[in-house]
Amino acid sequence: MDLHERIKENIKNHQDEYIAFLQKIVKEPSTTGNELAAQTLMADRLKEKGLEVDVWIPDYDELIKSKFFNPLRDNYEGSPNVVGILKGTENGRSVILNGHIDVVPAGDEKKWTYDPYSGDVVDGKLYGRGTTDMKGGNIATLIALETIINLGIQLKGDVVYESVIEEETGGAGTLAAIQRGYKADVAIIPEPSEMRIFPKQQGSLWFEVTVTGVSAHGGTRYEGVSALEKGWTVFEEIMNLEEKRNEPLRKDPLYKDNPIPIPINIGQFNGGYFPSAVAEKATIQGRYGVAPGETIEEAKEEFIKMLDDLKHKDDWFENHPATVEWGGIHLPPGGCDLDHPMLNILKEKYIEVENEEPIIAGSTWGTDGGLLTQAGGIPSIVFGPGTTSMAHFTDEYVELDKLFKTAEIIALAIIDWCEISAGSK
Amino acid sequence: MDLHERIKENIKNHQDEYIAFLQKIVKEPSTTGNELAAQTLMADRLKEKGLEVDVWIPDYDELIKSKFFNPLRDNYEGSPNVVGILKGTENGRSVILNGHIDVVPAGDEKKWTYDPYSGDVVDGKLYGRGTTDMKGGNIATLIALETIINLGIQLKGDVVYESVIEEETGGAGTLAAIQRGYKADVAIIPEPSEMRIFPKQQGSLWFEVTVTGVSAHGGTRYEGVSALEKGWTVFEEIMNLEEKRNEPLRKDPLYKDNPIPIPINIGQFNGGYFPSAVAEKATIQGRYGVAPGETIEEAKEEFIKMLDDLKHKDDWFENHPATVEWGGIHLPPGGCDLDHPMLNILKEKYIEVENEEPIIAGSTWGTDGGLLTQAGGIPSIVFGPGTTSMAHFTDEYVELDKLFKTAEIIALAIIDWCEISAGSK
Repeated sequence: MDLHERIKENIKNHQDEYIAFLQKIVKEPSTTGNELAAQTLMADRLKEKGLEVDVWIPDYDELIKSKFFNPLRDNYEGSPNVVGILKGTENGRSVILNGHIDVVPAGDEKKWTYDPYSGDVVDGKLYGRGTTDMKGGNIATLIALETIINLGIQLKGDVVYESVIEEETGGAGTLAAIQRGYKADVAIIPEPSEMRIFPKQQGSLWFEVTVTGVSAHGGTRYEGVSALEKGWTVFEEIMNLEEKRNEPLRKDPLYKDNPIPIPINIGQFNGGYFPSAVAEKATIQGRYGVAPGETIEEAKEEFIKMLDDLKHKDDWFENHPATVEWGGIHLPPGGCDLDHPMLNILKEKYIEVENEEPIIAGSTWGTDGGLLTQAGGIPSIVFGPGTTSMAHFTDEYVELDKLFKTAEIIALAIIDWCEISAGSK
Repeated sequence: MDLHERIKENIKNHQDEYIAFLQKIVKEPSTTGNELAAQTLMADRLKEKGLEVDVWIPDYDELIKSKFFNPLRDNYEGSPNVVGILKGTENGRSVILNGHIDVVPAGDEKKWTYDPYSGDVVDGKLYGRGTTDMKGGNIATLIALETIINLGIQLKGDVVYESVIEEETGGAGTLAAIQRGYKADVAIIPEPSEMRIFPKQQGSLWFEVTVTGVSAHGGTRYEGVSALEKGWTVFEEIMNLEEKRNEPLRKDPLYKDNPIPIPINIGQFNGGYFPSAVAEKATIQGRYGVAPGETIEEAKEEFIKMLDDLKHKDDWFENHPATVEWGGIHLPPGGCDLDHPMLNILKEKYIEVENEEPIIAGSTWGTDGGLLTQAGGIPSIVFGPGTTSMAHFTDEYVELDKLFKTAEIIALAIIDWCEISAGSK
């Protein structure tokens, strides 16, 4: 039996056990701040399999030193990171398997058909909060790792398995792992790509633009200057900036099926204080897509220049400039070169398992891959089993068939990348 | 000494007393719900002068029967209306002198140079909340009335002096006086017109338009429909409606110096719930100017038709119509015919006192004149001493010279209108 067949068979033989473990992990509602129980299960499992395991509490004082930190809390007590290392025998190519353990809240539980923390399996789908985003993905990479161990394969390079906290609220877990020194030649992140391969992942920033006007009584509104009207001028310029920034990406084959590769979404517009008074202030809040290959600083600069140029469109802004604050999320974009060897390996293994060409695309959202790429200098690829549209939704599920297929592809890819050691069975 | 000279002299002789009484009234902070003390002073004064005085609490159950009622409270306990009648000897032409006793709150008292309830007199200006809007005006008409009494003049027609509550919050006081049966052939309202004569007063309505969209993740915003963008389409159509509605008024000499005779002010625009999500709802709140001569119903109809026609501009509105709620203020417009004899009398008396032509214009705001005209069927003219721009402002004041001049003009006008009785001295 060739290696591929052995991998497939080994996964199959352990399927029930893997499903049971995924259910156990799903039953722990590991929302931000509540990751301990799920992380303990992960750490114990990695230890059982003989990995070197590191469990630690991310250090705010260290995190705050990084420009990539989103300081949404200042204490990580009870929220450990877990890293397990399968050491390579030689100094071969290494890989990080990075996944986050935190899940978004279940929302209105009454709307769920299945209890969000049940892990119920129905028609080949395992249901629950975090199944698709991304505990299902984490289990897929864990299966890949365990299968390699089960088959007694020794690799030349290290496999670094990272179960991190806080991806959903800004990336502190992955940033802490980078700061702790975990490195590899490439990273695979099994976020819910529906088995599409994303060698490019856009980043995103949140912005809040403030526009000012001059108040006046509504009956003599011509004595004032409406911050709503001025705000709309800014709205239009933001939309023009989106058009301009997306133009070069439209030629990119990764984004050919995407109407707006890196959207700027204006999500909130609020202005004025009284129906019968001219609005003296308006705020525009939104999400700013950051192109793969672009830095957050470059993206910010282009936005600020657009605001600065408003004065050429409307004199008002000369003495009443629109200002911007960057608050909340700022995720850098991530990715790898399109001729990166791991990308080719993943494609090849996908074809081997699925007998068809994989879809190669750019992600429409940010992941911890941005931190790995930009803060860690590690090329990163997103490839996972979850159903994209179910992330953060009611009745979230992962398809078990896709999960095992993903595990099979990743096991084959790791072996190809890290290479089998001469002393291996 | 002719009558005009006697009026002038009589006012002059009582100036200090009038100033002291105005100060007494200003010292009572008669905001909505707190009118009792000021109204008691007014009632006592009218009684002292020998008028028939009626003091009563407006009746919510009666008010609610009127389509003109703005039900902002359901109990008027402690907020009496006061009416004093100087009976005419014959069935001559009658006049209502209508003024509101309620004042808006003082706002941040620390910003005031003079205590807002002091009534301090500095350089010919009497300071305090309500001095311009409109206790100063009320005292001007009171002086006109008292001067006629002081001079022993008996009139053929009635003079109905109304000191009403609640103009600032919707007009319940004047509406209650109409319902109680107080009628006259014309009404003068000494609101702060800065001694301009307003034979036309616009009305105003508050509206809240709701626009819907479809939510989606900001990274795939093209899967949603932005309620902010749709809201802006509505915003533009509202502004087009303003243009259309003002077109005919621009030819009106009363509005020739007014850039927008009956403005539609969009005061608030609020939409969206999350920076990285497509907004699914937006609300647009504003103040809708109602033309003199127009009914509130006609104005509403035109607005609703504009919303209905949105579907011809953008298919979206076919199945997702923008809806409107009319909340808060709805003041009908008021006024009199431009050949109304009282308007001519006021002009003539103004010239007699001021030796120059008066400014005849249309008001930029609503007053109780709208209720008198539309609910009471009484032609109404606004003419008062207050400084328009100081209404509702910090350091509000009334110029005493203007106040006494206004009193003189109104005394002359009343005598001309109601005519001196044959049996008068």
